[in-house]
Amino acid sequence: MKVTGLFLEVLGGETKNPPPIWMMRQAGRYLPEYRATRAEAGSFLDLCATPRLAAEVTLQPIRRFDFDAAIIFSDILVVVMALGHGVRFDEGPKLEPLTTADTLDSNPQNWTKAFAPVYEALGLVRGNLEPSKALLGFAGAPWTLATYLAGGGNDEQKNAKLWAYRDPQGFGRLIDLLSACVATHLTGQIKAGADAVQIFDSWAAGLPPDLFERWVVQPTADVVRRVREAIPSARIIGFPRGASQSGLEHYAQATGVNAISLDGSVSLDWAAGKLETVLQGNLDPLALVAGGEALRRGVAGILQATRTVPFIFNLGHGILPPTPIEHVHELVKLVRAAA
Amino acid sequence: MKVTGLFLEVLGGETKNPPPIWMMRQAGRYLPEYRATRAEAGSFLDLCATPRLAAEVTLQPIRRFDFDAAIIFSDILVVVMALGHGVRFDEGPKLEPLTTADTLDSNPQNWTKAFAPVYEALGLVRGNLEPSKALLGFAGAPWTLATYLAGGGNDEQKNAKLWAYRDPQGFGRLIDLLSACVATHLTGQIKAGADAVQIFDSWAAGLPPDLFERWVVQPTADVVRRVREAIPSARIIGFPRGASQSGLEHYAQATGVNAISLDGSVSLDWAAGKLETVLQGNLDPLALVAGGEALRRGVAGILQATRTVPFIFNLGHGILPPTPIEHVHELVKLVRAAA
Repeated sequence: MKVTGLFLEVLGGETKNPPPIWMMRQAGRYLPEYRATRAEAGSFLDLCATPRLAAEVTLQPIRRFDFDAAIIFSDILVVVMALGHGVRFDEGPKLEPLTTADTLDSNPQNWTKAFAPVYEALGLVRGNLEPSKALLGFAGAPWTLATYLAGGGNDEQKNAKLWAYRDPQGFGRLIDLLSACVATHLTGQIKAGADAVQIFDSWAAGLPPDLFERWVVQPTADVVRRVREAIPSARIIGFPRGASQSGLEHYAQATGVNAISLDGSVSLDWAAGKLETVLQGNLDPLALVAGGEALRRGVAGILQATRTVPFIFNLGHGILPPTPIEHVHELVKLVRAAA
Repeated sequence: MKVTGLFLEVLGGETKNPPPIWMMRQAGRYLPEYRATRAEAGSFLDLCATPRLAAEVTLQPIRRFDFDAAIIFSDILVVVMALGHGVRFDEGPKLEPLTTADTLDSNPQNWTKAFAPVYEALGLVRGNLEPSKALLGFAGAPWTLATYLAGGGNDEQKNAKLWAYRDPQGFGRLIDLLSACVATHLTGQIKAGADAVQIFDSWAAGLPPDLFERWVVQPTADVVRRVREAIPSARIIGFPRGASQSGLEHYAQATGVNAISLDGSVSLDWAAGKLETVLQGNLDPLALVAGGEALRRGVAGILQATRTVPFIFNLGHGILPPTPIEHVHELVKLVRAAA
């Protein structure tokens, strides 16, 4: 089956008005059908590990909103679990804080075994998704996964930063192992049917420029290089959330990603002028919760700023559980009315 | 008494090597003498409200480290309390979430009564501080205070952003009242002996550009205008923590502050080239916790980037409680060795 369509055309560098649209966390708690399937599955981890149900929730937002891309339902911490480190979900992930990479499982065959349910779910989704819709895989970036491992799931990056400052070599070994595992998982997802993949660096904010270079840009470049060694045509979106503008320019030049997803604080006027790559983003999820004038102004500003560049409409971060469904319908209507 | 010295010379626009140095939260829990005075006072709020003890902890880091500036020991939430809204400290501030500005006390005479202990403490400090050392007052910025009021002290900005999106006029009334009260307090502190004041916008990160303009830049400009109406020569430092680079450029041009304090994620090479104002910052507080090579490299990079511009050495955020005191001594030595 040849997959084409608006999303992949833009990711390939074409400029389209209206742009393609999808939303981070589009398969999620704001949808009653998601909540029903989640209840059937049991826990969040059970849902991730049951291919039939993960495929079902992946397809739900496409049926309801006709988005241009589906993103496989999974979690960035599957990489951590594949490395043999336990994760418990209890209002957010809880991990035993890690202080050395030596206790992690470095056997790629074990990783692939752990990733098998994700690959099976991708196959199920691709078989039920029309060829004009793209299917996305994803993984957490090495730095973000390291912040969870070092910090026990606390969303502060303090432990990871302290480790990186005090013991750059030991921390580097952790990052290298994570890079290898992330690259393996992204490659596996593309082989299983993903048309493109996104690397989520959710905790890239607030890093001094030298740490951003060493622990965000270089490992991401390493992941991209490894994936392209296996699949030269791999299409990769990077999302260094909270990166500074200087950081974004450097990330765009140095990592080799095909596109950059921008959080809501980034000026798209600036990005369209400065970042020579495909852009994705960046409506504030709270503007979508609020709806009304805030939503209309937010969407209009984004569409205006990105008219002349290859651009994929998205949120600046995941959709929030209290988002009214009618606001999402309104969003899709506003974006598709762009000319 | 005529106060002069390195800090005020640089704040006035002169370039000095070595630069002056002070640290945000320099009177704090990392110091045993602070912990002793705090125990004598009872609670954190008791310490803020007892001028003799607040003055004592303000002077402690000057005695120990010979910093170029003292900052009065107080809290950004004194403005909230002056407006008649209760604040409880219990591992961070706890407030009843506010949904309308109408319940706040808009009588400036009551505000000034509430601020009296801060002014008394400033007088005590100034009398015991040599004239070569500057004394700083401070206040929270209207946006940051609004995030505490709307969110109940939760450090997410969600409630404030939602309020601003849904009801910009009602939220604007809150911001206007906060701006008036903040300006009153900054003016009062300068009259009581502060040589300069700093406006802390601790939660300015992650705002879309139009929200940053409307709720950070404009209210700060309003505060600066009000303070200068009362005291035309008032020296004001702004600290929009987490602002984007485009945001910082706009803040520098539009608010009228004399200097901008930068968080640790901002490239000082970029800032020294682009921001036409006095700079302050921006060592990562975790590099100071780590010490050793991380500290030496961090300090060297900052000093190198700022050699040719008016610059005040500081941290990118407040010093952390686990910081070893000998690392602070090392920091001061490294900065004072700059030539």
